[in-house]
Amino acid sequence: MRKQISSTQNKTIKQLLQLQEKSRNRKKEGLFMVEGIREIQLALKANYEFEAVFICPEVFAEDDLKNFSFAEHLLTEITAEVYQKIAYRSSTEGILAVAKTKTHNLEAIQFETEKPLILIAEAPEKPGNIGAILRTADAAKVDAVIIANPKTDLYNPNIIRSSVGCVFTNQIATGTTSEIIQFLKEKEIAIYSAILQESEIYTEQDFTKATAIVVGTEADGLSEEWRVNSTQNIHIPMQGEIDSMNVSVAAGILIFEAKRQRKFN
Amino acid sequence: MRKQISSTQNKTIKQLLQLQEKSRNRKKEGLFMVEGIREIQLALKANYEFEAVFICPEVFAEDDLKNFSFAEHLLTEITAEVYQKIAYRSSTEGILAVAKTKTHNLEAIQFETEKPLILIAEAPEKPGNIGAILRTADAAKVDAVIIANPKTDLYNPNIIRSSVGCVFTNQIATGTTSEIIQFLKEKEIAIYSAILQESEIYTEQDFTKATAIVVGTEADGLSEEWRVNSTQNIHIPMQGEIDSMNVSVAAGILIFEAKRQRKFN
Repeated sequence: MRKQISSTQNKTIKQLLQLQEKSRNRKKEGLFMVEGIREIQLALKANYEFEAVFICPEVFAEDDLKNFSFAEHLLTEITAEVYQKIAYRSSTEGILAVAKTKTHNLEAIQFETEKPLILIAEAPEKPGNIGAILRTADAAKVDAVIIANPKTDLYNPNIIRSSVGCVFTNQIATGTTSEIIQFLKEKEIAIYSAILQESEIYTEQDFTKATAIVVGTEADGLSEEWRVNSTQNIHIPMQGEIDSMNVSVAAGILIFEAKRQRKFN
Repeated sequence: MRKQISSTQNKTIKQLLQLQEKSRNRKKEGLFMVEGIREIQLALKANYEFEAVFICPEVFAEDDLKNFSFAEHLLTEITAEVYQKIAYRSSTEGILAVAKTKTHNLEAIQFETEKPLILIAEAPEKPGNIGAILRTADAAKVDAVIIANPKTDLYNPNIIRSSVGCVFTNQIATGTTSEIIQFLKEKEIAIYSAILQESEIYTEQDFTKATAIVVGTEADGLSEEWRVNSTQNIHIPMQGEIDSMNVSVAAGILIFEAKRQRKFN
Protein backbone atom coordinates (compact mmCIF):
# COMPACT_ATOMS: atom_id res chain seq x y z
CA MET A 1 0.00 0.00 0.00
CA ARG A 2 1.41 3.35 -1.05
CA LYS A 3 2.08 5.93 1.67
CA GLN A 4 -0.48 8.70 1.95
CA ILE A 5 -0.52 12.13 3.57
CA SER A 6 -3.72 14.09 3.97
CA SER A 7 -2.87 16.53 6.76
CA THR A 8 -1.11 19.82 6.14
CA GLN A 9 0.14 19.53 9.73
CA ASN A 10 2.05 16.34 8.94
CA LYS A 11 5.67 16.49 10.08
CA THR A 12 7.07 15.54 6.65
CA ILE A 13 5.07 18.31 5.00
CA LYS A 14 6.48 20.83 7.44
CA GLN A 15 10.00 19.64 6.62
CA LEU A 16 9.31 20.00 2.91
CA LEU A 17 8.17 23.57 3.42
CA GLN A 18 11.40 24.32 5.25
CA LEU A 19 13.41 22.89 2.36
CA GLN A 20 11.41 24.98 -0.05
CA GLU A 21 11.78 28.20 1.87
CA LYS A 22 15.16 28.12 3.57
CA SER A 23 18.56 27.99 1.97
CA ARG A 24 19.96 27.08 5.41
CA ASN A 25 17.80 23.97 5.60
CA ARG A 26 18.76 22.89 2.11
CA LYS A 27 22.43 23.17 3.05
CA LYS A 28 22.02 21.43 6.39
CA GLU A 29 20.04 18.51 4.98
CA GLY A 30 21.83 18.34 1.64
CA LEU A 31 18.40 18.12 0.03
CA PHE A 32 16.19 20.28 -2.16
CA MET A 33 12.79 20.18 -3.77
CA VAL A 34 12.07 19.98 -7.45
CA GLU A 35 8.65 20.39 -8.98
CA GLY A 36 7.12 19.66 -12.35
CA ILE A 37 7.47 16.84 -14.88
CA ARG A 38 10.14 18.38 -17.08
CA GLU A 39 12.26 19.66 -14.20
CA ILE A 40 12.23 16.24 -12.50
CA GLN A 41 13.11 14.53 -15.78
CA LEU A 42 16.05 16.88 -16.32
CA ALA A 43 17.30 16.29 -12.77
CA LEU A 44 17.04 12.51 -13.29
CA LYS A 45 18.94 12.80 -16.55
CA ALA A 46 21.64 14.73 -14.69
CA ASN A 47 21.92 11.82 -12.23
CA TYR A 48 20.45 13.56 -9.22
CA GLU A 49 19.51 11.05 -6.52
CA PHE A 50 15.90 11.19 -5.37
CA GLU A 51 14.85 10.54 -1.78
CA ALA A 52 11.10 10.94 -2.06
CA VAL A 53 8.42 11.71 -4.63
CA PHE A 54 5.03 13.22 -3.85
CA ILE A 55 2.16 12.93 -6.28
CA CYS A 56 -1.29 14.41 -6.09
CA PRO A 57 -3.64 11.93 -7.86
CA GLU A 58 -6.22 14.68 -8.40
CA VAL A 59 -3.76 16.46 -10.71
CA PHE A 60 -1.16 13.89 -11.74
CA ALA A 61 -2.07 10.92 -13.97
CA GLU A 62 -0.76 7.65 -12.50
CA ASP A 63 0.15 6.60 -16.01
CA ASP A 64 2.72 9.37 -16.27
CA LEU A 65 4.81 7.69 -13.58
CA LYS A 66 6.13 5.42 -16.35
CA ASN A 67 8.25 8.34 -17.54
CA PHE A 68 10.29 8.31 -14.35
CA SER A 69 10.93 4.72 -13.21
CA PHE A 70 10.92 5.72 -9.54
CA ALA A 71 11.05 2.84 -7.06
CA GLU A 72 7.60 2.33 -5.50
CA HIS A 73 8.91 2.87 -1.94
CA LEU A 74 9.85 6.48 -2.82
CA LEU A 75 6.27 7.41 -3.63
CA THR A 76 3.75 9.15 -1.39
CA GLU A 77 0.29 10.25 -2.41
CA ILE A 78 -0.87 13.60 -1.10
CA THR A 79 -4.23 15.31 -1.15
CA ALA A 80 -4.93 18.42 -3.20
CA GLU A 81 -4.94 20.48 -0.01
CA VAL A 82 -1.49 19.24 1.03
CA TYR A 83 -0.23 19.68 -2.51
CA GLN A 84 -1.39 23.30 -2.63
CA LYS A 85 0.41 23.92 0.62
CA ILE A 86 3.84 22.73 -0.58
CA ALA A 87 3.71 23.43 -4.31
CA TYR A 88 5.81 26.45 -5.20
CA ARG A 89 4.22 27.25 -8.52
CA SER A 90 0.62 28.23 -8.98
CA SER A 91 0.01 26.26 -12.15
CA THR A 92 1.74 22.95 -11.86
CA GLU A 93 1.62 19.28 -12.65
CA GLY A 94 0.87 17.42 -9.43
CA ILE A 95 4.33 16.01 -8.85
CA LEU A 96 7.20 17.17 -6.67
CA ALA A 97 10.23 15.43 -5.31
CA VAL A 98 13.10 15.67 -2.88
CA ALA A 99 16.59 15.15 -4.29
CA LYS A 100 20.12 15.31 -2.92
CA THR A 101 22.06 18.48 -3.68
CA LYS A 102 25.37 18.12 -5.49
CA THR A 103 28.58 19.86 -4.57
CA HIS A 104 29.69 22.33 -7.20
CA ASN A 105 33.45 22.50 -6.75
CA LEU A 106 35.68 24.08 -9.33
CA GLU A 107 37.91 20.99 -9.18
CA ALA A 108 35.06 18.82 -10.41
CA ILE A 109 34.69 20.72 -13.69
CA GLN A 110 35.56 18.58 -16.69
CA PHE A 111 36.18 19.98 -20.15
CA GLU A 112 35.65 17.91 -23.26
CA THR A 113 37.55 20.42 -25.36
CA GLU A 114 40.86 22.25 -25.15
CA LYS A 115 39.15 25.52 -25.98
CA PRO A 116 36.27 25.69 -23.58
CA LEU A 117 33.78 28.56 -23.46
CA ILE A 118 32.86 29.47 -19.89
CA LEU A 119 30.26 31.92 -18.61
CA ILE A 120 30.96 33.45 -15.21
CA ALA A 121 28.56 35.63 -13.22
CA GLU A 122 29.76 37.37 -10.07
CA ALA A 123 27.32 37.66 -7.17
CA PRO A 124 24.13 37.64 -9.24
CA GLU A 125 21.16 38.47 -7.03
CA LYS A 126 17.87 38.11 -8.82
CA PRO A 127 16.78 34.50 -9.32
CA GLY A 128 15.07 35.57 -12.55
CA ASN A 129 18.36 36.80 -13.97
CA ILE A 130 20.22 33.68 -12.83
CA GLY A 131 17.53 31.54 -14.46
CA ALA A 132 17.77 33.47 -17.75
CA ILE A 133 21.59 33.17 -17.69
CA LEU A 134 21.35 29.40 -17.16
CA ARG A 135 18.89 29.10 -20.06
CA THR A 136 21.28 31.02 -22.33
CA ALA A 137 24.18 28.84 -21.16
CA ASP A 138 22.18 25.73 -22.00
CA ALA A 139 21.17 27.03 -25.43
CA ALA A 140 24.79 27.94 -26.20
CA LYS A 141 25.99 24.66 -24.70
CA VAL A 142 28.81 26.44 -22.92
CA ASP A 143 31.32 24.13 -21.29
CA ALA A 144 30.67 25.44 -17.79
CA VAL A 145 28.86 28.12 -15.83
CA ILE A 146 30.63 29.47 -12.76
CA ILE A 147 28.98 31.60 -10.09
CA ALA A 148 31.50 33.73 -8.21
CA ASN A 149 30.73 34.76 -4.62
CA PRO A 150 27.17 33.36 -4.82
CA LYS A 151 24.48 35.25 -2.92
CA THR A 152 22.04 32.35 -2.94
CA ASP A 153 22.22 28.57 -3.34
CA LEU A 154 21.47 27.06 -6.75
CA TYR A 155 18.54 25.08 -5.39
CA ASN A 156 16.42 28.12 -4.59
CA PRO A 157 13.00 27.14 -6.00
CA ASN A 158 12.80 30.44 -7.85
CA ILE A 159 16.08 29.69 -9.66
CA ILE A 160 14.96 26.16 -10.57
CA ARG A 161 11.71 27.58 -11.89
CA SER A 162 13.09 30.54 -13.81
CA SER A 163 15.83 28.37 -15.34
CA VAL A 164 13.08 25.93 -16.48
CA GLY A 165 15.37 23.18 -15.23
CA CYS A 166 18.60 24.48 -16.85
CA VAL A 167 20.12 24.48 -13.38
CA PHE A 168 20.34 20.71 -14.02
CA THR A 169 21.48 20.72 -17.65
CA ASN A 170 24.58 22.89 -17.22
CA GLN A 171 27.90 21.99 -15.65
CA ILE A 172 27.89 24.52 -12.80
CA ALA A 173 30.52 25.40 -10.22
CA THR A 174 30.69 28.02 -7.51
CA GLY A 175 33.66 29.57 -5.74
CA THR A 176 35.14 32.81 -4.55
CA THR A 177 36.36 35.24 -7.17
CA SER A 178 39.98 34.56 -6.07
CA GLU A 179 39.59 30.81 -6.41
CA ILE A 180 38.03 31.15 -9.84
CA ILE A 181 40.72 33.50 -11.15
CA GLN A 182 43.38 31.08 -9.94
CA PHE A 183 41.54 28.18 -11.60
CA LEU A 184 41.32 30.06 -14.93
CA LYS A 185 44.98 31.04 -14.85
CA GLU A 186 46.10 27.49 -14.10
CA LYS A 187 44.09 26.23 -17.05
CA GLU A 188 45.31 29.10 -19.27
CA ILE A 189 41.81 30.28 -20.03
CA ALA A 190 41.60 33.90 -21.24
CA ILE A 191 39.51 36.16 -19.00
CA TYR A 192 37.20 38.70 -20.67
CA SER A 193 35.59 40.84 -18.00
CA ALA A 194 32.63 43.05 -18.81
CA ILE A 195 34.09 46.25 -17.33
CA LEU A 196 34.00 49.68 -18.92
CA GLN A 197 37.42 50.93 -17.78
CA GLU A 198 40.29 50.30 -20.20
CA SER A 199 38.00 48.12 -22.23
CA GLU A 200 37.64 47.23 -25.89
CA ILE A 201 34.51 46.47 -27.89
CA TYR A 202 33.51 42.83 -27.42
CA THR A 203 33.23 42.14 -31.15
CA GLU A 204 36.93 42.90 -31.64
CA GLN A 205 38.13 40.08 -29.39
CA ASP A 206 39.06 36.53 -30.36
CA PHE A 207 36.75 34.27 -28.38
CA THR A 208 37.73 31.13 -30.32
CA LYS A 209 40.52 30.26 -27.89
CA ALA A 210 39.87 28.98 -24.35
CA THR A 211 37.61 31.79 -23.11
CA ALA A 212 35.85 32.87 -19.94
CA ILE A 213 33.31 35.68 -20.24
CA VAL A 214 32.64 37.37 -16.90
CA VAL A 215 29.67 39.59 -16.02
CA GLY A 216 28.89 41.41 -12.78
CA THR A 217 25.72 42.80 -11.28
CA GLU A 218 23.78 45.69 -12.74
CA ALA A 219 24.20 47.69 -9.56
CA ASP A 220 27.87 47.16 -8.78
CA GLY A 221 29.50 45.72 -11.90
CA LEU A 222 32.50 43.46 -11.37
CA SER A 223 34.89 43.62 -8.45
CA GLU A 224 38.35 45.17 -8.76
CA GLU A 225 39.92 41.70 -8.70
CA TRP A 226 38.47 40.89 -12.10
CA ARG A 227 39.67 44.17 -13.59
CA VAL A 228 43.22 43.53 -12.41
CA ASN A 229 43.28 39.95 -13.63
CA SER A 230 41.48 40.32 -16.94
CA THR A 231 43.16 39.25 -20.13
CA GLN A 232 41.10 42.07 -21.63
CA ASN A 233 38.21 44.13 -20.33
CA ILE A 234 35.33 44.31 -22.79
CA HIS A 235 32.19 46.35 -23.22
CA ILE A 236 29.04 46.39 -25.31
CA PRO A 237 28.65 49.85 -26.87
CA MET A 238 25.71 51.66 -25.26
CA GLN A 239 24.31 54.39 -27.44
CA GLY A 240 21.04 55.31 -25.76
CA GLU A 241 19.96 57.66 -23.02
CA ILE A 242 20.62 55.18 -20.25
CA ASP A 243 23.79 53.33 -19.46
CA SER A 244 22.17 50.10 -18.50
CA MET A 245 21.26 46.72 -19.88
CA ASN A 246 19.76 43.69 -18.19
CA VAL A 247 22.65 41.47 -17.05
CA SER A 248 21.21 38.31 -18.57
CA VAL A 249 20.73 40.09 -21.91
CA ALA A 250 24.34 41.34 -21.80
CA ALA A 251 25.58 37.81 -21.01
CA GLY A 252 23.55 36.46 -23.94
CA ILE A 253 25.00 39.00 -26.38
CA LEU A 254 28.59 38.25 -25.29
CA ILE A 255 28.22 34.45 -25.27
CA PHE A 256 26.54 34.36 -28.67
CA GLU A 257 29.24 36.58 -30.17
CA ALA A 258 31.65 33.85 -29.03
CA LYS A 259 29.35 31.22 -30.57
CA ARG A 260 29.26 33.16 -33.83
CA GLN A 261 33.05 33.33 -33.94
CA ARG A 262 33.17 29.59 -33.21
CA LYS A 263 30.67 28.98 -36.03
CA PHE A 264 28.31 27.42 -33.49
CA ASN A 265 30.62 24.44 -33.02
CA MET B 1 0.72 78.05 0.04
CA ARG B 2 1.47 74.66 -1.51
CA LYS B 3 -1.33 72.09 -1.57
CA GLN B 4 -1.10 69.37 1.03
CA ILE B 5 -2.71 65.95 1.43
CA SER B 6 -2.46 64.02 4.65
CA SER B 7 -5.38 61.60 4.42
CA THR B 8 -5.15 58.29 2.58
CA GLN B 9 -8.91 58.61 2.09
CA ASN B 10 -8.49 61.78 0.04
CA LYS B 11 -10.32 61.59 -3.29
CA THR B 12 -7.24 62.51 -5.35
CA ILE B 13 -5.25 59.76 -3.69
CA LYS B 14 -7.94 57.24 -4.57
CA GLN B 15 -7.84 58.39 -8.18
CA LEU B 16 -4.07 58.02 -8.25
CA LEU B 17 -4.37 54.46 -6.99
CA GLN B 18 -6.82 53.70 -9.78
CA LEU B 19 -4.38 55.09 -12.33
CA GLN B 20 -1.62 52.99 -10.85
CA GLU B 21 -3.58 49.79 -10.80
CA LYS B 22 -5.93 49.86 -13.77
CA SER B 23 -5.06 49.98 -17.42
CA ARG B 24 -8.70 50.87 -18.11
CA ASN B 25 -8.43 54.01 -15.99
CA ARG B 26 -5.19 55.06 -17.63
CA LYS B 27 -6.86 54.75 -21.02
CA LYS B 28 -10.04 56.51 -19.99
CA GLU B 29 -8.25 59.45 -18.35
CA GLY B 30 -5.32 59.58 -20.77
CA LEU B 31 -3.07 59.81 -17.73
CA PHE B 32 -0.49 57.65 -15.99
CA MET B 33 1.79 57.76 -12.99
CA VAL B 34 5.53 57.93 -13.01
CA GLU B 35 7.72 57.54 -9.98
CA GLY B 36 11.35 58.26 -9.18
CA ILE B 37 13.75 61.05 -10.06
CA ARG B 38 15.37 59.47 -13.10
CA GLU B 39 12.11 58.21 -14.57
CA ILE B 40 10.46 61.64 -14.24
CA GLN B 41 13.51 63.32 -15.77
CA LEU B 42 13.43 60.95 -18.74
CA ALA B 43 9.71 61.55 -19.26
CA LEU B 44 10.30 65.33 -19.14
CA LYS B 45 13.11 65.00 -21.65
CA ALA B 46 10.74 63.06 -23.90
CA ASN B 47 8.28 65.99 -23.71
CA TYR B 48 5.62 64.28 -21.66
CA GLU B 49 3.17 66.81 -20.20
CA PHE B 50 2.77 66.72 -16.45
CA GLU B 51 -0.54 67.38 -14.71
CA ALA B 52 0.49 67.01 -11.09
CA VAL B 53 3.54 66.25 -8.97
CA PHE B 54 3.47 64.77 -5.47
CA ILE B 55 6.41 65.07 -3.15
CA CYS B 56 6.91 63.62 0.29
CA PRO B 57 9.11 66.09 2.22
CA GLU B 58 10.13 63.36 4.67
CA VAL B 59 11.92 61.56 1.80
CA PHE B 60 12.41 64.10 -0.97
CA ALA B 61 14.78 67.05 -0.56
CA GLU B 62 13.09 70.33 -1.58
CA ASP B 63 16.35 71.37 -3.18
CA ASP B 64 16.09 68.57 -5.74
CA LEU B 65 13.04 70.26 -7.26
CA LYS B 66 15.50 72.48 -9.12
CA ASN B 67 16.24 69.55 -11.42
CA PHE B 68 12.72 69.57 -12.78
CA SER B 69 11.47 73.16 -13.21
CA PHE B 70 7.89 72.19 -12.46
CA ALA B 71 5.43 75.08 -12.11
CA GLU B 72 4.59 75.63 -8.44
CA HIS B 73 0.84 75.10 -8.99
CA LEU B 74 1.51 71.48 -10.06
CA LEU B 75 3.01 70.57 -6.70
CA THR B 76 1.33 68.86 -3.78
CA GLU B 77 3.00 67.78 -0.57
CA ILE B 78 1.94 64.46 0.86
CA THR B 79 2.65 62.78 4.17
CA ALA B 80 4.78 59.64 4.45
CA GLU B 81 1.64 57.62 5.13
CA VAL B 82 -0.05 58.84 1.95
CA TYR B 83 3.16 58.36 0.02
CA GLN B 84 3.48 54.75 1.16
CA LYS B 85 -0.06 54.16 0.03
CA ILE B 86 0.43 55.31 -3.56
CA ALA B 87 4.12 54.58 -4.18
CA TYR B 88 4.54 51.56 -6.39
CA ARG B 89 8.09 50.74 -5.49
CA SER B 90 9.27 49.77 -2.05
CA SER B 91 12.52 51.73 -2.10
CA THR B 92 11.91 55.02 -3.73
CA GLU B 93 12.73 58.68 -3.84
CA GLY B 94 9.72 60.56 -2.49
CA ILE B 95 8.47 61.95 -5.78
CA LEU B 96 5.76 60.78 -8.13
CA ALA B 97 3.84 62.50 -10.84
CA VAL B 98 0.86 62.27 -13.16
CA ALA B 99 1.55 62.76 -16.86
CA LYS B 100 -0.50 62.58 -20.04
CA THR B 101 -0.17 59.41 -22.07
CA LYS B 102 0.94 59.72 -25.68
CA THR B 103 -0.63 57.97 -28.61
CA HIS B 104 1.70 55.47 -30.22
CA ASN B 105 0.48 55.29 -33.79
CA LEU B 106 2.56 53.66 -36.49
CA GLU B 107 1.98 56.72 -38.67
CA ALA B 108 3.78 58.91 -36.14
CA ILE B 109 7.06 56.98 -36.44
CA GLN B 110 9.83 59.09 -37.91
CA PHE B 111 13.07 57.66 -39.21
CA GLU B 112 16.25 59.70 -39.34
CA THR B 113 17.90 57.17 -41.61
CA GLU B 114 16.99 55.31 -44.79
CA LYS B 115 18.12 52.04 -43.27
CA PRO B 116 16.36 51.91 -39.93
CA LEU B 117 16.74 49.05 -37.46
CA ILE B 118 13.43 48.18 -35.80
CA LEU B 119 12.69 45.77 -32.99
CA ILE B 120 9.20 44.26 -32.98
CA ALA B 121 7.74 42.12 -30.19
CA GLU B 122 4.39 40.40 -30.71
CA ALA B 123 2.05 40.14 -27.73
CA PRO B 124 4.73 40.19 -25.02
CA GLU B 125 3.16 39.39 -21.66
CA LYS B 126 5.59 39.76 -18.80
CA PRO B 127 6.33 43.37 -17.88
CA GLY B 128 9.85 42.28 -16.85
CA ASN B 129 10.55 41.01 -20.36
CA ILE B 130 9.07 44.13 -21.96
CA GLY B 131 11.24 46.27 -19.69
CA ALA B 132 14.39 44.33 -20.58
CA ILE B 133 13.56 44.58 -24.30
CA LEU B 134 13.12 48.36 -24.00
CA ARG B 135 16.45 48.67 -22.18
CA THR B 136 18.17 46.70 -24.96
CA ALA B 137 16.45 48.87 -27.59
CA ASP B 138 17.71 51.99 -25.82
CA ALA B 139 21.27 50.66 -25.53
CA ALA B 140 21.27 49.72 -29.22
CA LYS B 141 19.58 53.00 -30.12
CA VAL B 142 17.24 51.22 -32.50
CA ASP B 143 15.15 53.53 -34.65
CA ALA B 144 11.85 52.25 -33.28
CA VAL B 145 10.29 49.60 -31.08
CA ILE B 146 6.91 48.28 -32.18
CA ILE B 147 4.62 46.18 -30.00
CA ALA B 148 2.24 44.04 -32.07
CA ASN B 149 -1.11 43.06 -30.58
CA PRO B 150 -0.19 44.48 -27.15
CA LYS B 151 -1.52 42.63 -24.10
CA THR B 152 -0.98 45.56 -21.76
CA ASP B 153 -0.60 49.32 -22.06
CA LEU B 154 2.89 50.79 -22.03
CA TYR B 155 2.17 52.82 -18.90
CA ASN B 156 1.79 49.79 -16.65
CA PRO B 157 3.88 50.78 -13.58
CA ASN B 158 5.71 47.47 -13.73
CA ILE B 159 6.83 48.18 -17.31
CA ILE B 160 7.97 51.70 -16.42
CA ARG B 161 9.91 50.31 -13.50
CA SER B 162 11.50 47.32 -15.22
CA SER B 163 12.45 49.45 -18.21
CA VAL B 164 14.15 51.91 -15.80
CA GLY B 165 12.48 54.64 -17.81
CA CYS B 166 13.40 53.31 -21.27
CA VAL B 167 9.70 53.33 -22.06
CA PHE B 168 10.30 57.10 -22.45
CA THR B 169 13.63 57.04 -24.31
CA ASN B 170 12.56 54.85 -27.22
CA GLN B 171 10.35 55.75 -30.17
CA ILE B 172 7.55 53.23 -29.56
CA ALA B 173 4.47 52.36 -31.59
CA THR B 174 1.77 49.76 -31.20
CA GLY B 175 -0.58 48.20 -33.72
CA THR B 176 -2.08 44.96 -34.90
CA THR B 177 0.21 42.50 -36.61
CA SER B 178 -1.59 43.15 -39.92
CA GLU B 179 -1.14 46.91 -39.64
CA ILE B 180 2.53 46.55 -38.82
CA ILE B 181 3.24 44.17 -41.70
CA GLN B 182 1.52 46.59 -44.08
CA PHE B 183 3.55 49.47 -42.64
CA LEU B 184 6.84 47.59 -43.09
CA LYS B 185 6.01 46.58 -46.65
CA GLU B 186 5.07 50.11 -47.62
CA LYS B 187 8.38 51.37 -46.26
CA GLU B 188 10.28 48.48 -47.90
CA ILE B 189 11.72 47.32 -44.60
CA ALA B 190 12.92 43.68 -44.61
CA ILE B 191 11.14 41.46 -42.08
CA TYR B 192 13.23 38.93 -40.15
CA SER B 193 10.93 36.82 -38.00
CA ALA B 194 12.31 34.61 -35.24
CA ILE B 195 10.53 31.43 -36.34
CA LEU B 196 12.10 27.97 -36.56
CA GLN B 197 10.26 26.72 -39.66
CA GLU B 198 12.04 27.31 -42.97
CA SER B 199 14.52 29.48 -41.14
CA GLU B 200 18.18 30.34 -41.55
CA ILE B 201 20.80 31.12 -38.91
CA TYR B 202 20.57 34.77 -37.87
CA THR B 203 24.29 35.43 -38.38
CA GLU B 204 24.00 34.65 -42.10
CA GLN B 205 21.58 37.48 -42.82
CA ASP B 206 22.34 40.99 -43.96
CA PHE B 207 20.90 43.29 -41.32
CA THR B 208 22.62 46.41 -42.71
CA LYS B 209 19.69 47.28 -44.95
CA ALA B 210 16.36 48.59 -43.60
CA THR B 211 15.58 45.81 -41.10
CA ALA B 212 12.84 44.77 -38.72
CA ILE B 213 13.63 41.96 -36.28
CA VAL B 214 10.49 40.30 -34.92
CA VAL B 215 10.21 38.13 -31.81
CA GLY B 216 7.19 36.33 -30.37
CA THR B 217 6.36 34.98 -26.94
CA GLU B 218 8.17 32.08 -25.33
CA ALA B 219 4.95 30.12 -25.06
CA ASP B 220 3.45 30.64 -28.50
CA GLY B 221 6.17 32.04 -30.75
CA LEU B 222 5.05 34.28 -33.60
CA SER B 223 1.71 34.11 -35.35
CA GLU B 224 1.29 32.54 -38.79
CA GLU B 225 0.94 35.99 -40.34
CA TRP B 226 4.58 36.79 -39.62
CA ARG B 227 5.76 33.49 -41.08
CA VAL B 228 3.88 34.11 -44.32
CA ASN B 229 5.08 37.69 -44.65
CA SER B 230 8.70 37.31 -43.55
CA THR B 231 11.48 38.33 -45.86
CA GLN B 232 13.34 35.52 -44.13
CA ASN B 233 12.65 33.48 -41.01
CA ILE B 234 15.64 33.30 -38.70
CA HIS B 235 16.69 31.27 -35.68
CA ILE B 236 19.38 31.25 -33.02
CA PRO B 237 20.98 27.78 -32.94
CA MET B 238 19.99 25.99 -29.74
CA GLN B 239 22.39 23.26 -28.78
CA GLY B 240 21.42 22.38 -25.24
CA GLU B 241 18.93 20.06 -23.60
CA ILE B 242 16.11 22.57 -23.71
CA ASP B 243 14.69 24.38 -26.65
CA SER B 244 14.12 27.66 -24.90
CA MET B 245 15.67 31.02 -24.31
CA ASN B 246 14.33 34.07 -22.52
CA VAL B 247 12.64 36.28 -25.13
CA SER B 248 14.46 39.45 -24.06
CA VAL B 249 17.82 37.64 -24.26
CA ALA B 250 16.96 36.36 -27.76
CA ALA B 251 15.95 39.88 -28.83
CA GLY B 252 19.25 41.23 -27.47
CA ILE B 253 21.33 38.66 -29.37
CA LEU B 254 19.52 39.40 -32.66
CA ILE B 255 19.61 43.19 -32.34
CA PHE B 256 23.29 43.27 -31.38
CA GLU B 257 24.18 41.01 -34.31
CA ALA B 258 22.59 43.73 -36.46
CA LYS B 259 24.59 46.37 -34.54
CA ARG B 260 27.81 44.41 -35.10
CA GLN B 261 27.12 44.22 -38.84
CA ARG B 262 26.40 47.95 -38.84
CA LYS B 263 29.68 48.58 -36.98
CA PHE B 264 27.68 50.18 -34.17
CA ASN B 265 26.75 53.13 -36.35
